Amino acid sequence: MWAELAGIGRDPVSGGYHRPGWSAAERDCVAWFVQQADARDLGVERDGNGNLVAWWGEPGRHGVVTGSHLDSVPDGGAFDGPLGVVSGLAAIDRLRDQGLRPGTPVGVAVFVEEEGSRFGVSCLGSRLMTGALAPDRAVELRDPNGRGVLDAMHDAGFEPHLGPSDLLRSPSTFIELHVEQGRGLVHSAAAVGVASSVWPHGRWRFDFTGRADHAGTTAMDDRADPMLTYAMTVLAANKQARLAGARATFGQADVAPGSTNVIAGRVRARLDARAADESTLRALVDTVTAQAHDRAGRDGTALSVTAESLSGQVRFPVGLRDRLVTRLGGSVPVLATGAGHDAAVLSAAGVPTAMLFVRNPTGVSHAPAESASQADCEAGIEALATVIADLSGAT
Amino acid sequence: MWAELAGIGRDPVSGGYHRPGWSAAERDCVAWFVQQADARDLGVERDGNGNLVAWWGEPGRHGVVTGSHLDSVPDGGAFDGPLGVVSGLAAIDRLRDQGLRPGTPVGVAVFVEEEGSRFGVSCLGSRLMTGALAPDRAVELRDPNGRGVLDAMHDAGFEPHLGPSDLLRSPSTFIELHVEQGRGLVHSAAAVGVASSVWPHGRWRFDFTGRADHAGTTAMDDRADPMLTYAMTVLAANKQARLAGARATFGQADVAPGSTNVIAGRVRARLDARAADESTLRALVDTVTAQAHDRAGRDGTALSVTAESLSGQVRFPVGLRDRLVTRLGGSVPVLATGAGHDAAVLSAAGVPTAMLFVRNPTGVSHAPAESASQADCEAGIEALATVIADLSGAT
Repeated sequence: MWAELAGIGRDPVSGGYHRPGWSAAERDCVAWFVQQADARDLGVERDGNGNLVAWWGEPGRHGVVTGSHLDSVPDGGAFDGPLGVVSGLAAIDRLRDQGLRPGTPVGVAVFVEEEGSRFGVSCLGSRLMTGALAPDRAVELRDPNGRGVLDAMHDAGFEPHLGPSDLLRSPSTFIELHVEQGRGLVHSAAAVGVASSVWPHGRWRFDFTGRADHAGTTAMDDRADPMLTYAMTVLAANKQARLAGARATFGQADVAPGSTNVIAGRVRARLDARAADESTLRALVDTVTAQAHDRAGRDGTALSVTAESLSGQVRFPVGLRDRLVTRLGGSVPVLATGAGHDAAVLSAAGVPTAMLFVRNPTGVSHAPAESASQADCEAGIEALATVIADLSGAT
Repeated sequence: MWAELAGIGRDPVSGGYHRPGWSAAERDCVAWFVQQADARDLGVERDGNGNLVAWWGEPGRHGVVTGSHLDSVPDGGAFDGPLGVVSGLAAIDRLRDQGLRPGTPVGVAVFVEEEGSRFGVSCLGSRLMTGALAPDRAVELRDPNGRGVLDAMHDAGFEPHLGPSDLLRSPSTFIELHVEQGRGLVHSAAAVGVASSVWPHGRWRFDFTGRADHAGTTAMDDRADPMLTYAMTVLAANKQARLAGARATFGQADVAPGSTNVIAGRVRARLDARAADESTLRALVDTVTAQAHDRAGRDGTALSVTAESLSGQVRFPVGLRDRLVTRLGGSVPVLATGAGHDAAVLSAAGVPTAMLFVRNPTGVSHAPAESASQADCEAGIEALATVIADLSGAT
C-alpha cells in the first residue's frame, strides 16, 4: 500500500508531498483508497462533505471507526494522515488473517482537507460532518486562487451537500492512529503511545494596512509601512510564546503589491498559536495583538485581527484511553499533543475518541524529513488491530 | 492620448496599473505608441532588446531623443513612465503647430521593463542597450512564473537579439521627462523642475533558510525559523536607513512552504536601498547584512545576500542641466531624486542626459494615488518642447 501512495503528489526535488484538499494529487489518493476498499470487499460510503468510510461488515451503529486523512500541507511528510489510513486497512487485513470477525461494524475513514492548507480552516471535513463548522461559513472560504470550497468540489467532479452527516453511524467509537509530530516518543522505549489531550489552538488572520509608495523617493518619515508592523509582530509572537511555554508561529505572509521598489500597502499574515490550556492561549494572542496595535500606532498603519479557527482543549475520555493502555500492555506512554486532528474535532462533538501515536525519530513533521521506521509502523498496525479487536468484540 | 492609455492594464477596484514588461497590457501600450507614431508620420525603429524610438525626420547622429517607459510596477500610478512618452509626442505636436522644424533628428523613445517588476532588474531595456547588463546575465533572469526574458519576448511575438545597440544614434542627447516621485515640488511655485542627480541605489536578495516543521508540535527551542531572522532584518534595515538619512525597504517576501501550520523553511526577500552617496549606501547595506547574520546565528538559520542590481550615483552633466534651467527661465528648481531612471542608465553610459520633473501634489508614486494636474502636465510639455527646440536648433 505504501509503495502505491509514495509517488502521488511528491516533489522530486524536496521529496515532500503536495496534496491540498480536492487537488488532483489528493483525489488520486482517495481513488487509491476506494480501490483498496473494493479489493477488500469493504463497502464505501461518502457524505455530502466528501468524507469517506469503508465498512467491514454492514455499516451500523455502535461500531468502531479508525482512519485519518490523505491531504497534506505544502511540501509535507509522507506519514501525516496516510499512516492512519494505511494502518486501518492493514489492521483489518491482520484481523482477517487471524480468522477474527468483529462483533460490531468496523470502518476506515478518510476525512477531507484536514490540514486546512487550501482553505485556511483545518479539519474542514470533520468540522462540517459534526456541525462544528456551518456550511454557510464554509462556502465563503477561498483558496489562494480565489476558488471556493464548492468550486473545488465541483472541479474534482464531486456533487457537494455540505452539512452534518451521520457517516460514522453514531454512536460509534473513533480511533485515529497518527505519526507523532514532535519529540515525544524519540527517547521512549515504546514505538506506540496513546494520546491524553490536544492543546487548544487556533489561527488568527492579521491584516496590516499601510500606504503603498515609492521605495526610493519616499522619506522614511513619510511612510506608513505595514511590513514594519508585521515584522515586530512576528518577533513579539515568538517572545510571548517562549515566555508562556506556548507556541506561536507566523508561517505565511502575503505582501501587496509585492514589488521590490514599492513600499508594501498591505501585509496579510496568519498566526498559528497553541498552549497547554485555553486561558494561556487567550492571554498569548491578546498580548501579541496588543503589541501589534501599539506598533501600528507608531508606524501609521492599521491592523485588524480575525479569528479564523479556534479549537478548544480536547481531553480524550479517560476510560477509553485507559482501556487502550491496558490492552496494549499497560506501560504505553500517554502524551498530549500540540497538533490538531480530526479525532479532536470528533471528541469535541461528543464522539468517544482515542488516538494512537507512532514514534517519529526525527521529531520533524509537516516537512519531508518527517519519518517513522517500518518496524514502528508495523507496531502501530499491531496496536491498532489489538484495539479494534477489543472494541469491536472480534472473535 | 491620455484617454486612450487610461484603460490599459487598469485594476477596476484600486485604479492602479498592472503593466509588467512584455505583458499583454504593456504590449497594448507599445502598440498604441506605434500607432501614435504612424499617425504623426514618425518612423519607428526597434532594437533587439525591444526598445523603440519614433523619429521626427531622418534618424541620425547628434539628435535629441526624449521619452521614457510604458511598463508599471504592480498596482502602479498612471504617470510613472507614460507621462514622458505622451509628453514627447505632444511636444513634437506643439513644435509642428508652431511651424518649427528641428535642425537635428528628434526621437521619442520607449524603453522596456524599466521598473524591473517582472524580472527583478530595473531599466532592463536601457541596461541591455548601453551594455550595462550583459545579455548572458539577462537570459538567466526569471519572472515569478519561471519564464525567462527570452521566453517573455517570444510570448509577446518579438524576436530578440539582446545586446548593445545604437538605437539612439550616438552621440545624441537624451532628455527624460518624468512625474516627480516625492514631495520635492509640492511646496514649490514651479510646476516643472530639473534633475541634478540620481541617488545610488540597488537591490539585494536576502535568502533566509531554516527548517520547515510543524507549527503545533515543535517546541520553540527546537526551531530554526527563518521568519524570525527576516523580521529582525526588516526592522534593522528601517532603523539603519533612518540613522543614515538614507532609504531601505523590504517590499516583497516569499515564504516557503507558506502554510499557516508549518514553520517556514525559507524566506526570500529583497532589500531596496538608496542613499545620497555610495559610501553611505555601502555602509548601510553592510550594517544590515551584519545584523542579519548575527540574528541568523541566534535563530539557527542561514542567510545569503546577493546583489541583484547596483546603480552608482549619477550626476547629470552640469552644462546641459544649466542650459535647461536658463531656457526655462532661470528660476527652475533643481533637485536630486532617489528614483532610478533610464536617463540615469544612459548618463552613466556617457550619453549627455538631462531630466525634467513634473510636480506631483500627492508626493505618492508607485501607487494609484500618484498624481499630476492637467495644468502641470501641460507646463511639462511646454518645457519639454522648449528644451527640444533649443537642443535641436529648431527654426
